[in-house]
Amino acid sequence: MSQSLKFSVISKVSDSKARAGFFETGHGIVETPAFMPVGTQGTVKAVNQNLLEQDIKAQILLSNTYHLYLRPGTEILEKAGGLHKFMNWSKPILTDSGGYQVYSLSSLRKLKEDGVEFRSHLDGSTHFFSPEKVIQIQRSIGSDIMMVLDECTPYPCDFEYAENSTELTSRWAILNKEAFENSEQLYDHQQFLFGIIQGSIYKELREKSAEGLKKLDFNGYAIGGLAVGEPAEVMYDITNFTTDLMPEDKPRYLMGVGRPENILESIDRGIDMFDCVMPTRNARHGVLFTTQGVLTLTNSKFKEDFEKVDEYCDCYTCKNYSRAYLRHLFNAGELLALELASIHNLHFYISLVVEARRRILDGSFNKWKNEIIKKISIKNNPREIGMEE
Amino acid sequence: MSQSLKFSVISKVSDSKARAGFFETGHGIVETPAFMPVGTQGTVKAVNQNLLEQDIKAQILLSNTYHLYLRPGTEILEKAGGLHKFMNWSKPILTDSGGYQVYSLSSLRKLKEDGVEFRSHLDGSTHFFSPEKVIQIQRSIGSDIMMVLDECTPYPCDFEYAENSTELTSRWAILNKEAFENSEQLYDHQQFLFGIIQGSIYKELREKSAEGLKKLDFNGYAIGGLAVGEPAEVMYDITNFTTDLMPEDKPRYLMGVGRPENILESIDRGIDMFDCVMPTRNARHGVLFTTQGVLTLTNSKFKEDFEKVDEYCDCYTCKNYSRAYLRHLFNAGELLALELASIHNLHFYISLVVEARRRILDGSFNKWKNEIIKKISIKNNPREIGMEE
Repeated sequence: MSQSLKFSVISKVSDSKARAGFFETGHGIVETPAFMPVGTQGTVKAVNQNLLEQDIKAQILLSNTYHLYLRPGTEILEKAGGLHKFMNWSKPILTDSGGYQVYSLSSLRKLKEDGVEFRSHLDGSTHFFSPEKVIQIQRSIGSDIMMVLDECTPYPCDFEYAENSTELTSRWAILNKEAFENSEQLYDHQQFLFGIIQGSIYKELREKSAEGLKKLDFNGYAIGGLAVGEPAEVMYDITNFTTDLMPEDKPRYLMGVGRPENILESIDRGIDMFDCVMPTRNARHGVLFTTQGVLTLTNSKFKEDFEKVDEYCDCYTCKNYSRAYLRHLFNAGELLALELASIHNLHFYISLVVEARRRILDGSFNKWKNEIIKKISIKNNPREIGMEE
Repeated sequence: MSQSLKFSVISKVSDSKARAGFFETGHGIVETPAFMPVGTQGTVKAVNQNLLEQDIKAQILLSNTYHLYLRPGTEILEKAGGLHKFMNWSKPILTDSGGYQVYSLSSLRKLKEDGVEFRSHLDGSTHFFSPEKVIQIQRSIGSDIMMVLDECTPYPCDFEYAENSTELTSRWAILNKEAFENSEQLYDHQQFLFGIIQGSIYKELREKSAEGLKKLDFNGYAIGGLAVGEPAEVMYDITNFTTDLMPEDKPRYLMGVGRPENILESIDRGIDMFDCVMPTRNARHGVLFTTQGVLTLTNSKFKEDFEKVDEYCDCYTCKNYSRAYLRHLFNAGELLALELASIHNLHFYISLVVEARRRILDGSFNKWKNEIIKKISIKNNPREIGMEE
């Protein structure tokens, strides 16, 4: 019988739903709000694990079940002793269930009552993911937090499609929980399972989804099906509505979000956990986040700018290199550009949630949030690249 | 008036011309034999400066005048305060003169008495390198060791072409030395100038070239025009012949060499300094050097091999990751593969010359060299990629 995830909320804010807390896994504590760098294939693109831990100070990574299942495959992961050992990462890992990638990457997806058939984006081979199967794969991976198989509805999505899809996700959730209870961990640390609330932009569907999942008593709850193209205001509204339906004593995870201001606005609406490819993907295109807004370092205006990327940042990149040097590296097509920019952007995201946590603890979150969003908002930074991979 | 480079030979071997020594620059001491990682565009491909210094323990880098002149250009380098500051590298830097890249990379090269006209490989723009010009560019770069402009003869090369070319290089050497003496350093460290002995595979030309250069009293002497396609035995023979012509009390640099066994055989023949793209370029193709021979990590036979790349290596890669993980990263096209493999190969090369130095000091160089070459020789490792960039 598995134990509950120990999640403690240690501070709330009076004028906001924001909360600071922490939870414990076999690979250590995660302080919330938390941002999880995305390590799709068992590596955060362009950044080594030492920098992730020591400089960027990531407390938890996300990795993708769909990708790891296809490559290197569960057999190799099991022989390695799980993903932590395979990639040499001793802190917590969360894996998604693969549902989103089946929807976004694979061809010829066939949704059936008992799961989803799809073709690999790598070689066209046919595979089948069921709730039982994705639990089994995540047992092989050994992630600290596993996610249930769901269907991620697209945007826009009509009510009937969303209703049927959400009901399917709810039926799968039961099977996921059963498979979780009936399976054993393969390694010497406990694994936890989070449910995913779907329902597109329809509040009555979100409500039904949340009610169904809560009965199953998951270790945490995620909001899925947002950040798929809907306006930010809609995302905030649905997030705000849905967090009211979620247990107070379990972590709340908003999947795939987002821009820096999306993260702060969602913390304000009661979210504890985030993941997004934005910091790393923008970095690889020379788009860097700073406390003063976005810099596009491929721009020639930086060629004689010997300042650091962000004067308030103490990441490895900002401590050692100038904008002009990074601009040169991008201009010359050098690989080091991708590493240095990725380090900075991940450090920015992690520092942002760490600062948010500090502000929640000292009661100044809302005031700080409104000030910083003015500087970093997408409205003033049109060169950012979106969050959809 | 510039001071001489202080070069001390501290140990020689009785059964070999191998020697251990060191020289001092304004950016610190370089122990010889030394291997210089190649940082063509002001960055060693895929490896950050912290790892280069702390893990790989590079004592000196090579950077390319041709590339830096085209991008970012001397104006930006001067505004940055020189290349050391621009790239944040506090140890010594050697720059080539650009002669080799004009020969290997540019189109429409026109050799004239007073220099060489060429078109940029980047945008086709026309440029002119003279002996004076390349000194001026290297003053802007601020490299600790500058190289003279030369013509690098191709292989094969008939005697008449080689003779004319070598005489031109010798006339340019005089102009280089004059330009060096008549120009000032731009930053607060002294720069030194090395001459380059040419002469293709013709010993009488090597002799004439060396005699001419020695009269000019350079701070060190390089052998150019080897490692351009000739058989290894020819390279060794010309190297051995030429080092006898070179001053005992100045560093001897064999340009662009080479495979690990080429380096050891050339140390045996009296060479002190090396540079080569082989470690980094092979790394990016998944070809890793080890004390037991070469591993091609893209090979599927490594997919369940959880050993370190080289059991005797203590680089960041070997201390933290397995062959199976690296194989996965290469297979999945992940950027981290390039970094981890480059770290290992550079660490291998530097460790090789450090060990050679230790063996020279304790008198066991020749015996050790013959044993290790059996394991690492190209004859047993056909998958290596050549040294020509």
